[in-house]
Amino acid sequence: MLVVPLIERKRDGGALTPEEWSALVAAYTVGEVPDYQISALLMAVVFRGLERAELAALTDAMLASGARLAFDGWAVPRIDKHSTGGVGDKVSLVLAPLVAACGVAVPMMSGRGLGHTGGTLDKLEAIPGFRTGLSLAEAKAQVQKLGCAMIGQTPEIAPADRKLYALRDVTGTVEAIPLISASIMSKKLAEGLTGLVLDVKHGSGAFLPGVEQGLELAKTMIALGEDRGCPTVALLTAMDRPLGRACGNGLETEEAIMALRGEGPPDLMEVTYALAVEMLLAAGVEKSSARSRKKLENALASGLAAEKFEQVIEAQGGNPGVVEDPGALPQAAAVEIFEAPDTGIVTRVDPRAIGRAVIALGGGRQRVEDAIDPAVGFVITVKPGDKIVAGEPIASVYAKDAAGAQLGCETLARAITIGDRMREKPLPLVSHRVTRAGVEDLTGERGRGRKDR
Amino acid sequence: MLVVPLIERKRDGGALTPEEWSALVAAYTVGEVPDYQISALLMAVVFRGLERAELAALTDAMLASGARLAFDGWAVPRIDKHSTGGVGDKVSLVLAPLVAACGVAVPMMSGRGLGHTGGTLDKLEAIPGFRTGLSLAEAKAQVQKLGCAMIGQTPEIAPADRKLYALRDVTGTVEAIPLISASIMSKKLAEGLTGLVLDVKHGSGAFLPGVEQGLELAKTMIALGEDRGCPTVALLTAMDRPLGRACGNGLETEEAIMALRGEGPPDLMEVTYALAVEMLLAAGVEKSSARSRKKLENALASGLAAEKFEQVIEAQGGNPGVVEDPGALPQAAAVEIFEAPDTGIVTRVDPRAIGRAVIALGGGRQRVEDAIDPAVGFVITVKPGDKIVAGEPIASVYAKDAAGAQLGCETLARAITIGDRMREKPLPLVSHRVTRAGVEDLTGERGRGRKDR
Repeated sequence: MLVVPLIERKRDGGALTPEEWSALVAAYTVGEVPDYQISALLMAVVFRGLERAELAALTDAMLASGARLAFDGWAVPRIDKHSTGGVGDKVSLVLAPLVAACGVAVPMMSGRGLGHTGGTLDKLEAIPGFRTGLSLAEAKAQVQKLGCAMIGQTPEIAPADRKLYALRDVTGTVEAIPLISASIMSKKLAEGLTGLVLDVKHGSGAFLPGVEQGLELAKTMIALGEDRGCPTVALLTAMDRPLGRACGNGLETEEAIMALRGEGPPDLMEVTYALAVEMLLAAGVEKSSARSRKKLENALASGLAAEKFEQVIEAQGGNPGVVEDPGALPQAAAVEIFEAPDTGIVTRVDPRAIGRAVIALGGGRQRVEDAIDPAVGFVITVKPGDKIVAGEPIASVYAKDAAGAQLGCETLARAITIGDRMREKPLPLVSHRVTRAGVEDLTGERGRGRKDR
Repeated sequence: MLVVPLIERKRDGGALTPEEWSALVAAYTVGEVPDYQISALLMAVVFRGLERAELAALTDAMLASGARLAFDGWAVPRIDKHSTGGVGDKVSLVLAPLVAACGVAVPMMSGRGLGHTGGTLDKLEAIPGFRTGLSLAEAKAQVQKLGCAMIGQTPEIAPADRKLYALRDVTGTVEAIPLISASIMSKKLAEGLTGLVLDVKHGSGAFLPGVEQGLELAKTMIALGEDRGCPTVALLTAMDRPLGRACGNGLETEEAIMALRGEGPPDLMEVTYALAVEMLLAAGVEKSSARSRKKLENALASGLAAEKFEQVIEAQGGNPGVVEDPGALPQAAAVEIFEAPDTGIVTRVDPRAIGRAVIALGGGRQRVEDAIDPAVGFVITVKPGDKIVAGEPIASVYAKDAAGAQLGCETLARAITIGDRMREKPLPLVSHRVTRAGVEDLTGERGRGRKDR
């Protein structure tokens, strides 16, 4: 096909027809259009954006390039959650079994660490034996049996997205709202969902730090989902500091397990409950937020949620004993306590610096083929706003050796800023709720809700 | 090298350092950076432009990727002309021998047809035996002996430009002023010139139709040349209709020969003289435009210019007899006279339609490997503003067969518009003169010159 006129038209501010997007994605997927033409087109999209019909066509073409989970006449509601990625974000590990324990099926398809952020698959694989590479048929059977499966993007799902994503990653074309939206939604729409909840991160540790960008991304994905028969709702949540205390795959898995056992840190629980409430509402199993929250708290307190996680781990080949005894997770050889260097107020915990340091410790990939050390990372027990005294232990470094521990302490000294007063308030943990109907500001003025349509 | 951060920086409006441009071009030229990263970067440059220091570094890196014509201590001034390309633009074939006949060395390096425009090399090769593929050493020896050589870009000259140009051609990244400027100037600066004259076309048949774009391109190239010790001046000339009468390689060569013999069409002569005057001024062989013009007219009238062309043809392996007898050029099998379909005024002769039709007749390439039929094309004897009577012959089609002649007549019927009055005035043949000092409007208000710095 003639690609140059399409590139030129997009470059000059025009639109490709749905048929052109469809043919282009199909030809690229089978290797008939070279990478260098698509990367130029993607860069033009970064600048020009996509019209609504173009975005729909691109998403549909990516979706159509692969297989879908088909639950046919199965009556159980199926809801997934997607996060745009952050540091310390182990919400999925708590949320999926928790929501499944409330009678909602969660066919969860997650990703690996990307940039400075961690990935759910890497966290799950910290559990000895855990297999994330289920086939679609296996995943479907498990969802129908247990109400939950936690898998990676299979080669059958949206191969066009897989190829495009790899190209975007090496051509500076990741940060474009329509391309992010099409990539996420082409995979989510392949899961056979009856509803989708999006966790859109904002703040310095998010891929799109600005709240306006976050809202635009949320609206774009919601329109794509709703137009394709998948009711979609989004919450904007804070990523100006790590979520919870643990950062690093095994450490985060341990924190998630503790959360399922009722001992999660408050910020992690607040975000998890907020998203879980939306999933229960989307599934229609409860009519109000308050009743949903109650049901979720009961599932947690009764041990049903933790038990569901054990079932999922066992079904996917992992050692379910980690839920009872997180000490069965891989343990770091070198552990160093980090003490507050000054007395004062914690003004900032830089999520990007922490995320990058986890990678530097071996807990993430520098190259695609790198193996991950699941034991390394940080546990940071202070949050912005906390008062601390010099010499007080405020974090721990988990490393493979003394040199790593030293590196980790140096990172913490830079990433945790101590001052005499807060210069800017931390972002509210859950700030906006976005639906097809509009944007609801959950912070309002002094906490009063405000509708902003 | 890490290319993604460079792409992202340019995408986000930042600049690469000269060292980064230099390293990137060098790595790309030897194949260490893939096409898909460079095409994304080039598209970002289309949107963000290049800062002056970046453009300089890119041009220098492309220049440094290859060899240069070194004339060492040779005292003869060396001036080349470059045209941004048009339809019917056979100026180089007249200009090079004409200027060389006035004692200025012309080491002319030209290109092939591109898009809807013709190329000087293809026109020269219409002369049986003419060899444009001289080595740099051959070209230098010929310039020093005859004062003129007319060659193509050798593999030794700016290989980085060759590779980048091929990539731009297939990725929609041709139309960017800094990229066009760097590409042209990296080749011209390799010719060992003492001065350069640019013919920047504007109007619907030019690659950059707008006068503002043309002025910006001129200023950009002038700054690049002047900063590198090559005095550079530009004229903006009209390309809203074909230049001269002939369009098609052999037909244009014939028209150029007729021009050298004193029988060129007035518009071709006006543009040729204007550029040639600038070359003589740049060479310092005359002090005023009027004296330069006189010298050029003498060189033409005395037969010295035509004789110089014969010498160049002979030196490059061609049949010099074509100057005496243009009938020795390849002749088309089918010739059809095109008669005016209506009485009225010629309001438009569409250069793009004519240029594309020459290609369709076989006189240009649809693919790189296509051979060119040098005999085909058009001779159009009317200009916008001319009054014509229905049935009057106004053009001829030269084709390889009757079907081609028919196709040519259909093109002419569309490309030549006849009306009752001119809707808009044709562009002035030579409208602006641009130097480092500023822009001189040569049309002014009713012909008065106006300085616009």
